[in-house]
Parts: sequence; C-alpha cells; structure tokens
Amino acid sequence: MDDDSPEARWERRTGGLLTLASLLFLAAYAVRVLAEPALPRAARAACYATMLAAWAVFAVDYAVRWRFSGRRLGFVRTHLLDTIVLVLPLLRPLRFVKTYERVQRRHGLPRLPLYGRVIVYAGTSAVLLGFSGALAVYHHEHGAPGTTMRTFGDAIWWTCSTLSTVGYGDVAPVTPVGRLIAVGMMACGLALLGAVTGSFSSWLLQVFSREDEEGPPGR
Amino acid sequence: MDDDSPEARWERRTGGLLTLASLLFLAAYAVRVLAEPALPRAARAACYATMLAAWAVFAVDYAVRWRFSGRRLGFVRTHLLDTIVLVLPLLRPLRFVKTYERVQRRHGLPRLPLYGRVIVYAGTSAVLLGFSGALAVYHHEHGAPGTTMRTFGDAIWWTCSTLSTVGYGDVAPVTPVGRLIAVGMMACGLALLGAVTGSFSSWLLQVFSREDEEGPPGR
Amino acid sequence: MDDDSPEARWERRTGGLLTLASLLFLAAYAVRVLAEPALPRAARAACYATMLAAWAVFAVDYAVRWRFSGRRLGFVRTHLLDTIVLVLPLLRPLRFVKTYERVQRRHGLPRLPLYGRVIVYAGTSAVLLGFSGALAVYHHEHGAPGTTMRTFGDAIWWTCSTLSTVGYGDVAPVTPVGRLIAVGMMACGLALLGAVTGSFSSWLLQVFSREDEEGPPGR
Amino acid sequence: MDDDSPEARWERRTGGLLTLASLLFLAAYAVRVLAEPALPRAARAACYATMLAAWAVFAVDYAVRWRFSGRRLGFVRTHLLDTIVLVLPLLRPLRFVKTYERVQRRHGLPRLPLYGRVIVYAGTSAVLLGFSGALAVYHHEHGAPGTTMRTFGDAIWWTCSTLSTVGYGDVAPVTPVGRLIAVGMMACGLALLGAVTGSFSSWLLQVFSREDEEGPPGR
Repeated sequence: MDDDSPEARWERRTGGLLTLASLLFLAAYAVRVLAEPALPRAARAACYATMLAAWAVFAVDYAVRWRFSGRRLGFVRTHLLDTIVLVLPLLRPLRFVKTYERVQRRHGLPRLPLYGRVIVYAGTSAVLLGFSGALAVYHHEHGAPGTTMRTFGDAIWWTCSTLSTVGYGDVAPVTPVGRLIAVGMMACGLALLGAVTGSFSSWLLQVFSREDEEGPPGR
Repeated sequence: MDDDSPEARWERRTGGLLTLASLLFLAAYAVRVLAEPALPRAARAACYATMLAAWAVFAVDYAVRWRFSGRRLGFVRTHLLDTIVLVLPLLRPLRFVKTYERVQRRHGLPRLPLYGRVIVYAGTSAVLLGFSGALAVYHHEHGAPGTTMRTFGDAIWWTCSTLSTVGYGDVAPVTPVGRLIAVGMMACGLALLGAVTGSFSSWLLQVFSREDEEGPPGR
Repeated sequence: MDDDSPEARWERRTGGLLTLASLLFLAAYAVRVLAEPALPRAARAACYATMLAAWAVFAVDYAVRWRFSGRRLGFVRTHLLDTIVLVLPLLRPLRFVKTYERVQRRHGLPRLPLYGRVIVYAGTSAVLLGFSGALAVYHHEHGAPGTTMRTFGDAIWWTCSTLSTVGYGDVAPVTPVGRLIAVGMMACGLALLGAVTGSFSSWLLQVFSREDEEGPPGR
Repeated sequence: MDDDSPEARWERRTGGLLTLASLLFLAAYAVRVLAEPALPRAARAACYATMLAAWAVFAVDYAVRWRFSGRRLGFVRTHLLDTIVLVLPLLRPLRFVKTYERVQRRHGLPRLPLYGRVIVYAGTSAVLLGFSGALAVYHHEHGAPGTTMRTFGDAIWWTCSTLSTVGYGDVAPVTPVGRLIAVGMMACGLALLGAVTGSFSSWLLQVFSREDEEGPPGR
C-alpha cells in the first residue's frame, strides 16, 4: 500500500472538500430552479457563483491529479469517471461510494460483491442523473405554453417513467431544449438501468446456482 | 441431512402457519381496499387486525430464526429473502415455492433446472408485487379528481402495462402517493422481469445448443 | 441416422399435412374475424369446422407420437414446443423451420449458426403470436364503445407497438377480454423479443471478436 | 499483410469516393424531404438524380468486390454489412468507422476494446437509421390529416422516444406508410440498442472486476 505517494495524500486531503463542493453545486442549482419566481436577484447571483466555484474546485482537482500522473491523454481514458464528473459535476456524489469503498478496504472490512457494486454504481448514477435532469427539464418546461409539466413533482414523475422506459405520455416535454435533455436522459438511463437489470439478473442466477451446491437455503 | 436441528424442525412446523398468515394478510388487504365504500366499520377494523396479526407472526418467526442462527447482522444478509418478506408480507407466498422445493428434494424428486427456477421465482415475485401494488395504487387513486383508474380492472391493466414497460398511458396515476408506489413497482418490475427475460433467453440458447449435440428434436 | 424408425417415418409422412392444417387454421380464423359483418352464416360455420378439423389433426399427431415415444409425462416435457403448438395451433408454422432444418441436415448442407437459429425461432414465434393476437384483440375490440381500434391496420399497429414495449397509447384495448389477450401478448412478446435482442447482441459481439483474430473484414 | 491484393487496392482507392457518395445520398434525401413545399421542380429532379447516382456507385463497388472474391452466394453472407449498406445506402457512413479502424491498425495505433467497438457500431447504426427513418416518416406524415408530427423536430423527438422504447405517444404516425417505417425502426432499434445496452453492461462489469484485481481506482 503506497498510501504515502503524493497522489494518495492529495486524494485523502481533498476528498471531503470535493464532496462538499458537489453537494453545494447540486443544492445551488436546485434552489435556482425550484425557487425561481420568488428568487431575488442577489440570491440568483449567489446560486450562480456557488455553482461556478464548485465547478472550479473540480477543475483544479482534475488538473492537479493529471499533473501527478505524469501522463498525457492516457489519463483521460483511465480516469473516465473523473472526466465525466468534471463535465457533469452533479454526478460527483458517485465519489462518495468510492471513498466508502477505500475505507472498507483499508480496514479489511468486506466490500459489496461484484454485481452489488455495479448495481449500486449504475443505480446511484441513474438517480443522480435523473434528479439533475428533472431539475433541468423542469427549468425549461414549466412555463412553456401547452406544457403538461406544471409542478416539480410532475417532472420527477416524468423522469421515472422515462428512465424505466415505461413512458406513459401523460407528462412530456414540449420545448426543444427540454426534449434535447430528455433524449440525453433516455440514452444514459437506458444504458445505466440496463446495467442494473443485467447485474441483478446475473446475481439472481448466481444465488440460485449457489443454492444447488450448498443445499436448501434457510438452514 | 441434519433435519433434526432445531432450525429445521422449527421451519417444518411453522411452514403451514406462515403460508396461512401470508394469504390472510393479502386477503384482508384486498377486502379492505376493494369493498371500501360498502365496508362497515367493524369489518374494516377486523381487516386491520388480521393484517397486524399476520405481520406479527412473520416478525416472531424471523426473530426466532435469527436467534437459532446464533449470528448477528450476518443473518440479515444471508436471509435476504426472509428479510424482504418481513417488510413486504405480501411476498410471503414465495416461501410456497421453497417449501415445494424442499419436499421434492427430500423425496429425491427432480427439481426445475436453474433457469426455470429463476423464472418461476422472479415471475411469481413480479405477479405478487404487481397484485399488491395494484391494490395499493387503486386504494389511493380511484377517488382522486381527474383519475383515469375507475375500476380495479383498470388498476390491474395499468399494472401489467407498467411492469412490462409498455406504458400506454390510457390509465396512469395522478396522486403523489399513487405515483410513489408506481415508481417502486417500476423499479422492482424492471429488475424482476429483466431476470425472467434474461433467464428465458439463456434457457432458449441452452435448448438450441443441446439440440446441436444430441441431433434433431422430435426423435 | 435411424431415419427408418417408426417415429421418423411418421414425421416425414405427416409433415406436409400438418403444415397445411396449420395454415388452414390461421386462414379460417382470419376470414372469420376480418370478414365478420359480411360473412354469411354458412361461411362462418365452415370457418369453425375448418378450425376444429385442423386442431383435430394436431391432436391425433400429438397422440400418435406420444404413443411411439413409449414414455409418459416425460414426453410432454421433452416435446415442449409440440405441446405449445397443440394448445396454440397458430404457432404450428414453426415446424416449417424444423422441417427445413432437417432437410438441410440430411443433405449435409450448412445450417444457421446457434444465435441465428434462436433469432429465427423466437422472431417467427413473436410474429405469429402477434398476428394471431392482433386478430383476437381486433375481434373483441373493433365494435366496443369508446374503442380506438377501428381497422385491422390499427390492430396490427397496436400489436407492434406493444410487442416492442414502445406503447404509444394512441391505440389501446378497452374491453376486459381484449386487455386479457393483450397481457398474454405482453408476457410472451417480452420473453421472445428479449431472446431475439439478447441473441443478436451476443452474435454481434461474436462477429467483432472474430474480426480481432482473423484480421480486418472485407478481405 | 497482403495489402497488395487487388481487393485491398480497390478498397483503398474507392474508400473516399464511397463515403462521399453516401453523404451525398443522405444530403440529397434530406433536402428533398425538408425543403419540400418550396423546392423547385429542377431541384427536386437534381435530388433524385444524386440519390440514384450515389446508389449506382454502391452497386458497382459491390459487384466489383463480389467479382474479386471469386465466390458465389457465400460472398453475400460473409459481407452481410456491405449487403445491408447496398440496400440501405443511408447506413454507408458505417464504413467510416471501418476505414478509421484500418488506419489505426496499419499504423499500430491502439483500437477501441471489443465492447467499445460494438457500442460504437451499434450506436452509430441506430443514429443513422433513426435519422433516415425520421426523414422518411416525416415525409409521409407531416401533411396527413390528424397528424401530430408537424415539424421535423417532432419527427426527431418521436424517433428518439421510439428507439429508446419509451413511446410517450404525444407524437405518433397515423398513415399506413409512416407506421410501416415505424415498425421497421422499432425492430432494428430494439436489436441495435439492445446490443449497445448489453455491451455497456458487460463493459461496466469488466471495469469493476478489473478494479478488484488491480486495487482501488484513482491511483
């Protein structure tokens, strides 16, 4: 365990700050969207400033770790998740899971099995993506003429029916920007929830085939 | 076969009672929801009492078996299905399948192959979940203003179109609680029916690759 | 190759008759449903007689082959497809594929690879199931009050949007029987098309990993 | 590397021309559909001429390569993708990826891993298919009575909601030809995006199981 390398020390020290910045980013965006009509001008500016500051923190962290790695474009590829987080800071809480995992590892505590981890990662990504997508779509839709998305509850309901590919159509975006975000959500949601479903299915098969070997469950 | 261990004896003796309690729970809930406007006050109280009693039976059984296991939190993890049944007693009939399986095993009778068992388990869970979900959503929706779910038949139809992710939208929940239950059903239904579909697909591949080895079917 | 066993001879001789019976069954049902208002009484009776006769042919064939097998319930399990065809004679054309395959085999001609056969079987089943389901649902829906399924074209369109789980909802059944058939179609369609999708995906992966070994395609 | 075989030389020389012909085909079709009411007669004829010329280029290329192969029907099967491109010239840009790949290979540059390539191929096919499908459906729908597809943006939105199997139903084809194309898109979209989802899921599992072996990510 080379926990004393500069990178490892950097990550240990910045972990808390980055999680905080991520939560601030999400909170500032939510306040800006949900409290819109009643939001005074100063508060709106404060929201934007918070979002910019949080994003700057991610950018600096990414740059420093790229520096430490001593590599060029290869860094982007091997740190794909970090790169995605840089572009979509709302996904930052995913690092939470990673931090938790590293702690478990260091203390020799058991970690979730493979399928469980894929389900947790993909599921958490889908929930975070869905929440930020619902915020963004609601932002563009709720005042549009002919909209069916009147409250944020409608936006959340629409998000769930979209990500699960059920798609009732009782609520659906009508503006070009809202539809563009919706298409992005469909693409990511399909892939992420497909991974969740596939892993759950594999896990179930594993459980049942293990039962065959070890005898009936419940003993 | 250590069928004489205290746990095994406990399970053999309580099996019938637990199945009965589970069916009573489901029946009491169904009566309470479907006969609502015409239900006299005493009958409603009887329904709630039955549900509480059934749930208490599950809780006691769970506690006793936890005791027998001599373990702590590990029990919750290895008896995941039992824990889920404790929280959602409507899924209790799943133990039916397990009981049937144990009997087949003891008598040396053939059991369903791996994929078949996953399909039966996941499919039965989905049906039970769907039925109890339809009851719960109907309970909250059928009197709401602007509802499209007027009869229990509509609720069942909506459940099937949701679990299969078809989602016509001719019937859809409009109340916050109804939508919350619907989201839970979407999540579980997606996972369970994904497992059914995946296992069926694997089984079909297995059948066809076995045909290759053994010669043409029908001989 | 024991092509001279009684079973093999029986199958060779009855193959053409069974396929004919199956096509007659489907045709009679289609005529009965699609030409309904203009159909004279005698023609309707002829349709029913044709359907009954076709079904009787299947029943006799099934009984004879059961007899030949010299087995009891094991026959039902190993001849699952035949049993399904007995109950749903509309799926009979599936034997077409089997007959074609046996001919290819006997003449030493190449057969479709594993994934291709699963796709063809599951896909053909889905198409036949969809066509007969569209007929049955149209039969019950097209005169119902408040229906959105006015022509048989609507029924086919509804079937495609249901089997693919897209589910627009512009056409949807409103009668209890129509919805019951629809639920059956959803269940079978999900499983069959899931198998098609899964096999196509596996086949694509196989093609691409083969390219890795053999060099670039197109040479 | 037998890059000097006649086939390889032919492919190197015609690569650019074929890609150009493909883009011209797509562009001419898009102009013809999107600029319809305002399109002068001569421009319309020019569009048709371009499309025909582009298609002729594909046909000649296909015929020449068939000739070179010295094979008969086996060529059609082993060059399945080329055959599909011949029938649906809009998918021609797929060769782009192949050309890029061959260049990477010759220069010893790293290529995308297996799952990545399947995702890129299936995803690109789905996007091209969706775009040409949206053009074709819009062409038949936008003037039909009772249509919900008024602008090309609606057609794109409908395409995305169809390919992802969400299917809101706020926009849906009403003409027979539009619905026929839609059914073709559903079938291909289901298969292609199923391959994308499946490969993404497998890739995610691979990433997570590699992490197990190599230690925590981010180091």
